[in-house]
Amino acid sequence: MTDHAEFLRRAGDLLGPRGLTCDADLVTPWLTDWRGRFTGKALALASPANTGEVSAFVALCAEHRIAIVPQGGNSGMSGGATPDASGDAVILSLRRMDRIRSLYPESRMVTCEAGVILQVLHEAAEKERLRFPLTLGGKGSATVGGLISTNAGGTQVLRHGAMRAQVLGIEAVLADGSVFDALVPLKKDNRGFDLKQVLIGSEGTLGIVTAATLRLLPEIGGRCVIWAGLGSISDARQLLVHCERVAGERLEGFEVMPANSLAAVLDHLPDARSPLAGVHAWHALIELVAGAGEEERLADLAESLLTQPFEAGLVEDATIAANETQAEQFWRLRDSIAPAERAIGPAMQHDISVPVERMARFVEAAVPQVEARFPHTRAIAFGHLGDGNVHFHVLAPAGAPRGQWEESEGKEISAFVHDLVTEWGGSISAEHGIGQMKVAELGRLGDPVALAMMRSVKQALDPLGILNPGKLVPLAPEAASP
Amino acid sequence: MTDHAEFLRRAGDLLGPRGLTCDADLVTPWLTDWRGRFTGKALALASPANTGEVSAFVALCAEHRIAIVPQGGNSGMSGGATPDASGDAVILSLRRMDRIRSLYPESRMVTCEAGVILQVLHEAAEKERLRFPLTLGGKGSATVGGLISTNAGGTQVLRHGAMRAQVLGIEAVLADGSVFDALVPLKKDNRGFDLKQVLIGSEGTLGIVTAATLRLLPEIGGRCVIWAGLGSISDARQLLVHCERVAGERLEGFEVMPANSLAAVLDHLPDARSPLAGVHAWHALIELVAGAGEEERLADLAESLLTQPFEAGLVEDATIAANETQAEQFWRLRDSIAPAERAIGPAMQHDISVPVERMARFVEAAVPQVEARFPHTRAIAFGHLGDGNVHFHVLAPAGAPRGQWEESEGKEISAFVHDLVTEWGGSISAEHGIGQMKVAELGRLGDPVALAMMRSVKQALDPLGILNPGKLVPLAPEAASP
Repeated sequence: MTDHAEFLRRAGDLLGPRGLTCDADLVTPWLTDWRGRFTGKALALASPANTGEVSAFVALCAEHRIAIVPQGGNSGMSGGATPDASGDAVILSLRRMDRIRSLYPESRMVTCEAGVILQVLHEAAEKERLRFPLTLGGKGSATVGGLISTNAGGTQVLRHGAMRAQVLGIEAVLADGSVFDALVPLKKDNRGFDLKQVLIGSEGTLGIVTAATLRLLPEIGGRCVIWAGLGSISDARQLLVHCERVAGERLEGFEVMPANSLAAVLDHLPDARSPLAGVHAWHALIELVAGAGEEERLADLAESLLTQPFEAGLVEDATIAANETQAEQFWRLRDSIAPAERAIGPAMQHDISVPVERMARFVEAAVPQVEARFPHTRAIAFGHLGDGNVHFHVLAPAGAPRGQWEESEGKEISAFVHDLVTEWGGSISAEHGIGQMKVAELGRLGDPVALAMMRSVKQALDPLGILNPGKLVPLAPEAASP
Repeated sequence: MTDHAEFLRRAGDLLGPRGLTCDADLVTPWLTDWRGRFTGKALALASPANTGEVSAFVALCAEHRIAIVPQGGNSGMSGGATPDASGDAVILSLRRMDRIRSLYPESRMVTCEAGVILQVLHEAAEKERLRFPLTLGGKGSATVGGLISTNAGGTQVLRHGAMRAQVLGIEAVLADGSVFDALVPLKKDNRGFDLKQVLIGSEGTLGIVTAATLRLLPEIGGRCVIWAGLGSISDARQLLVHCERVAGERLEGFEVMPANSLAAVLDHLPDARSPLAGVHAWHALIELVAGAGEEERLADLAESLLTQPFEAGLVEDATIAANETQAEQFWRLRDSIAPAERAIGPAMQHDISVPVERMARFVEAAVPQVEARFPHTRAIAFGHLGDGNVHFHVLAPAGAPRGQWEESEGKEISAFVHDLVTEWGGSISAEHGIGQMKVAELGRLGDPVALAMMRSVKQALDPLGILNPGKLVPLAPEAASP
């Protein structure tokens, strides 16, 4: 047991009363992840005001061998920002570091601190007639640091890539407190290993992102949202390939959902209605965008995009949102799938990917396999078909007890789904990360060579193991076995 | 001293006579880099036929502690593929592994072995009406493995990024002979550190790339090449910003050269003539491309692109290539700068970058500083202004003895240029890598935190230090000092 009192005294001296607290009222809200699935304890909540304070605080933690759990908006999906039950770790919140340091409209770059909230970043870009091309449900709480540390995805990855693709430069505090400063972006730099790439998506296990320089894009001139009814997910895949060929860079999103997901949403949202009159096994939501001055061409493009698939019988029915209000209604249906399902009953949710061209076949194969293996469950897959990433949810049999079912049959189901995904050459975490939720599954199913590399890199950059221990990196094989 | 005879016997058994040779006639051509600046010795030349052989061979090298110098087309710019003078290392050539394993036109992906030559890849893509969006002067010899290991650039980085941006998946043999297989690309995968990013650009010091899956793009419908005469490089920068705003994704290249570079080229190529009648301090070569079916809009775009800069007096004169032949003539002028200069006399060449928006000011500041500090030299900068990357050449005073000058005053000049670049927040290697040529300079000027991270990662993934020792990673500070 290290001398916590001495550590806390020194940390308090360093960070001041705003920067360090052990007050349960202030700490407790951050001990549980937002979905309420993980709860831990913490020695204290540290909220440094700037990079220098983060650096000094991490050095102090290293000296006292205190584990650090970095935290942004606490809206992660895998418990990566929640401490364990020991109470020996400190939460290091980056939320106080919420300054946009600079925004250069001409260079289309913004440098902001880790605690800047995504929504705030969007607004800052819009003021300059620019946009930050990544968005997701938690944009009101998710922070830049968290988005980078989890390499977050969202609905624009198809066209613009995940968070990794937005990061031009990074500043991070390493495990010994030293500051890795690669904030000034160089478009070309071949001076050795691209170390910032290792930090992106490392969930705070190799360093703590304190600031970043991100790319911005010109604002869009307009968008056009299409809703299409299809006979199968394979047809949706064919439509996607067609859209990529015809619309090229103007294709910004391509999301799919099965009939029962739409039905659940319509049940859940009494004021919503289906965009199409008939019944279709699958639905696709397609978004096209145009640059400023190109809006008019967009409607033509949408029309011509659908002509051939209609004639070929690929699309059963389709409608183009007449205006922005309708476009938002279409997206609201898509965004309501998860809450609609949660209202139905317990479900196991899997954020999975397989190679893009295999996803339709994977869904067609996996859904009946899961439902046959676990009678009375219902498997549905929806989401980012264009990224080879679906959210694969398995709904509990009617009447299954919430909480209990997830811990018993639910776990078996997840293992079964993860096995299937692995057989298909896919990933058990497409965009939500590993955190604490999937670390055992990663240890079980990860490529041993990749796992060995990960452990080596982790050991090299965090030899004391103080950075977010227990997250992301499965322990050595011997230590990991039960 | 390890027992080389025993090692060679076992390696010969493993790889067979085609796979291993010590024959001086066969080995010698690969002991010197193509620019003739570095020459070494080697124990043998190994040319495995497949990944399994690479794996077994590396494991054997690890057992015998034999250093490995991986080599592709041997057309690198920094001596990264040339062994040292000890004669204790083996050259591991990937050239025999030259198979395109698969090409999926629908998914726009190609999986090829490390030894596939860039030109061959271009041709394979073109057959499917696709293109691989990276090209450079050495395309007839440069291999996929070498391009990945050096994160090669070229003239299309502005629009499509460097080699890193083309790599979807990778297969590599690690220092213990294990095979890291991340060849099947997942568009989204958040299962831990993105290890392939560490291998890209690591110059064979962390692993040996044996195969890769690369992205392909649709073939272009046409291109339009503009030559513009300008009063200054700052005007060129303003024109670039204008082009990015107006042409957006259609801007594929933006290269600049000063008047004296163009004059040197025209002297060097008796059949060439200047695209413009008058004299201009700076010249810009601008390439626009259009997708299939959009060719006609391109000419309109080019015209409208120039209207405002003409009226504002930003562009002094400009001409649009009337046809493909003329477009190629324009590019030939650009591509002939380096050979034209070599014909003049000795020069120190620097491949440098600074933040894109600072490059024009950097050139305007650095050229007179260098020429003042080293009288009778002439500094010229040309190249990829849109990437913040120029080739900054310093020509020797007239009559300076070739060979001798580079080793004396030349070295001082390079140190001076690298100091300047570092002050401006730039990189001493934008696209050519570090190799053995710049490793001491990287040790001298690199950020100590980044260097420490590099050394840690190197030590973690190559604990025996057998992978391309002496390249890219500067030794520990104490060991590096003279």
